[in-house]
Amino acid sequence: MVSDTSQHSAGHPAPKKKRVRDPEARRAAILAAARSVFAERGYAKATIREIAQRAGVTHGLVVLHFSTKEQLFLAAVPGTRDLADSVQGDAAGLAERVARAYVARMESADGADPFIALIRSAAADQDAAKALLRAMREESVNAYGTVLDRPDVPQRVDLVGAHLIGVTFSRYVLADGPLAAMSPEELTRYLTMTLAGILQGTPGRPPATG
Amino acid sequence: MVSDTSQHSAGHPAPKKKRVRDPEARRAAILAAARSVFAERGYAKATIREIAQRAGVTHGLVVLHFSTKEQLFLAAVPGTRDLADSVQGDAAGLAERVARAYVARMESADGADPFIALIRSAAADQDAAKALLRAMREESVNAYGTVLDRPDVPQRVDLVGAHLIGVTFSRYVLADGPLAAMSPEELTRYLTMTLAGILQGTPGRPPATG
Repeated sequence: MVSDTSQHSAGHPAPKKKRVRDPEARRAAILAAARSVFAERGYAKATIREIAQRAGVTHGLVVLHFSTKEQLFLAAVPGTRDLADSVQGDAAGLAERVARAYVARMESADGADPFIALIRSAAADQDAAKALLRAMREESVNAYGTVLDRPDVPQRVDLVGAHLIGVTFSRYVLADGPLAAMSPEELTRYLTMTLAGILQGTPGRPPATG
Repeated sequence: MVSDTSQHSAGHPAPKKKRVRDPEARRAAILAAARSVFAERGYAKATIREIAQRAGVTHGLVVLHFSTKEQLFLAAVPGTRDLADSVQGDAAGLAERVARAYVARMESADGADPFIALIRSAAADQDAAKALLRAMREESVNAYGTVLDRPDVPQRVDLVGAHLIGVTFSRYVLADGPLAAMSPEELTRYLTMTLAGILQGTPGRPPATG
């Protein structure tokens, strides 16, 4: 589906400066700039202007791609686009896929992820946190609903969200205790277990002891 | 073990004002005052002086009972004394006992619990939050270790703590979404399921799908 848009053979000279550079590269640069600005400033104090400057693009181009600061945050934070992609597949492997995607994303950010900034500033800026988590929840409910055949997907998705908020808080915000000391592989193994309990368990009934 | 310390029969007249009132009632009054002051002010801004005033006792008596503000907080917060008591019993029922104790305690506080204040102020006052959560974790590891026969009790206890932090954050701090909308009974049923997954699951392996 990728078409070659260069037109060297049509008799016109190539323009000195291409007006449209690779849109995907620009989008990636904006997202990388957004991640670092949100992580540094927190959601409330981050501005589209600073994100545009850091990405080397105009304010208008950021708005063209992402419309609002909230939309930009949602695109930049883990648990939305990446997590929605990783949700796809069979129900039995869902917990492991979500665990792997979460750990890979958080570890690659090395403590500078917008989700960490959101958790850190949520109490001080409750309205923004509520709106952002609500949007993340809605996207997640849609994605999980295509894989899980259960009537209580919204409840389970909210429990997954709460679980990952708590783990993020312990491991990355306070960075103290056994969770903070785990290797990424160990964390992935434990989260596969805990997320499976949330996604596949039966409310009110512990699983058969093993 | 309770001895009657009144001395009406020894020939001395009873003092007009009994010097030693019921110590358990005083202890309960101090804890109630501590809960309300910690919930209102957060951990960092709460003082033993204000707690003593609200309980109608002297500063010295609070120190006599609880030594330090940290010790007083740990005695007043759920997840320590009450939770340690509720841990006792058979391993198979542990998740349900912890779920019931957590929900009963948080619901009775009606949003004014020191644990909620701790989560709310943790990002702003990380050192206090780290010390308090570390102490709560140590007490919990000791209590759970008497019930669970597993080599990784510290890791599982930390996951339980992170889970309850995340649930507290969603239901009581942000107070938004499906978790916040659940009845106490529904929440207890879901937490029995999720805590069982954390306490009894096998790392790296989802449970058999049911």
